[in-house]
Amino acid sequence: MSAFDLEAYLTERRALVDAALARLLPSEDTPPPTVHRAMRYSVMAGGKRLRPILVIAGAEAVGAAPAVVMPTACALELIHTYSLIHDDLPAMDDDDYRRGRLTNHKVFGDAMAILAGDALLTLAFKLVAENAALVKDARVICDVVAEIADAAGTGGMVAGQVVDIESEGKAIPPETLEYIHTHKTAALLRVSLSVGVRLGGGDAAALAAIGDAGQSLGLAFQIVDDILDVEGDPASLGKSAGKDAAGAKPTYPALFGVERSRTLATECLERAHRNLDDAGLTDGWLGQLADYVVTRKH
Amino acid sequence: MSAFDLEAYLTERRALVDAALARLLPSEDTPPPTVHRAMRYSVMAGGKRLRPILVIAGAEAVGAAPAVVMPTACALELIHTYSLIHDDLPAMDDDDYRRGRLTNHKVFGDAMAILAGDALLTLAFKLVAENAALVKDARVICDVVAEIADAAGTGGMVAGQVVDIESEGKAIPPETLEYIHTHKTAALLRVSLSVGVRLGGGDAAALAAIGDAGQSLGLAFQIVDDILDVEGDPASLGKSAGKDAAGAKPTYPALFGVERSRTLATECLERAHRNLDDAGLTDGWLGQLADYVVTRKH
Repeated sequence: MSAFDLEAYLTERRALVDAALARLLPSEDTPPPTVHRAMRYSVMAGGKRLRPILVIAGAEAVGAAPAVVMPTACALELIHTYSLIHDDLPAMDDDDYRRGRLTNHKVFGDAMAILAGDALLTLAFKLVAENAALVKDARVICDVVAEIADAAGTGGMVAGQVVDIESEGKAIPPETLEYIHTHKTAALLRVSLSVGVRLGGGDAAALAAIGDAGQSLGLAFQIVDDILDVEGDPASLGKSAGKDAAGAKPTYPALFGVERSRTLATECLERAHRNLDDAGLTDGWLGQLADYVVTRKH
Repeated sequence: MSAFDLEAYLTERRALVDAALARLLPSEDTPPPTVHRAMRYSVMAGGKRLRPILVIAGAEAVGAAPAVVMPTACALELIHTYSLIHDDLPAMDDDDYRRGRLTNHKVFGDAMAILAGDALLTLAFKLVAENAALVKDARVICDVVAEIADAAGTGGMVAGQVVDIESEGKAIPPETLEYIHTHKTAALLRVSLSVGVRLGGGDAAALAAIGDAGQSLGLAFQIVDDILDVEGDPASLGKSAGKDAAGAKPTYPALFGVERSRTLATECLERAHRNLDDAGLTDGWLGQLADYVVTRKH
């Protein structure tokens, strides 16, 4: 399949996800309106929808349709968005811009941004629970709730943010940087793929392979993010390039240089491909999606 | 049964809940330690454990043992605690003391308090999912996840906090005050009773009755909280009496006076008793627990 096909695939899946998000989020005039406006402001700000697309691609790789996993796909985007809203707060990374527009708290105030984040995290688990209507065995949903909670909590994303904050302005060893990246970013990307395969009816072998592949891909994603922050085009990034260095954030290019970072990302990608091959999951879109994670320009 | 018996019941159930929370929360030395210390600091600060006890009492009322609902009982306490941590933040109510000790952000900083709250909310849903191992039908767990998410999100607790913040320092009509109380506090109390009955195997009639009773009891609880804030003993409240008036928080005594507020609370209690009677659920502890909500001194 050509790169053109992948673009079309991404555009199509993104449109499905955007439509589902618009439907599943409470409307802006649902009382109390302020918090619903704040939630929609950040969720509907665009973005690659990479996590929902990984959920869908995971399901498709084992023969299930996107509709079967759509509530959970949206849930992963809500969790990603809540983490961005809270990370941007003055008490955390203190960012004014995100995806080319003012951050949530700059528009709605700190209190509303905290509450909008809390509400998105809460709604995410409701959507996963509602996915029960689309699968035969409700135990799968319980497993998915637990798996997502692990990846989003202090075994995953929150742990990464904690260590990231505690490392700011300090010289940290490569192991700590890898800990931050695998927890803060990779955990949620890994679980997106994994719950897609699980909800799609994948067997234990597929689940094990996809977990390993997701872990490697997630790390590759964040290394590439770090590189793009050094080299990227600010217009397509939607934030200022060089921001990480300015804020003394630990990054792969800062520790290893750009060239070595690129090699590390490629090695992660190769590991992911081997995992997917072993499980016979490369034939569909997953293999191309994996390449996209490393070759993307924004 | 005498009031002495109820005290013994509450003490016993509280000990069960405390032990389960201590077991289910990650230990303080689990990496990254800071966030786990922050989580335990607030959860293990004591408190009445009213929400978990309502879950247990709901289950017992339909013949189930406390152990069957313990993970979900703890989940409700984690959600309650996360909401207190976030509410106390400088960006929200800006409180320095809670339950007689420094608030979470005064000890761990704003960033860690936000993350500890996020992590507790996330862990809560994991505990509910793990409750699946203790029930026959996993669909019940999916219903419980959705019900709790409704009560904790912008259909319940978060909605109440949003309107509370937006009402501060303003003259508001009684309907708005009732909206704040039924959403900010009553929703989580109602759902505690309700999921206890659901997990305990209660039928549709029991669920309907308990929902109505929980709603009335939850409102009564918050009216009594408002009264105690005016009249209460600061030592046993663990916060300064009169704080609500000082911060221009809308309260029942401020709008109706103490006597009329007491009457309103008693009316709520009577409604709750009628609901419980209708469903044949008053014989056990529930009836006494309902009385306790209104007669408690702190």
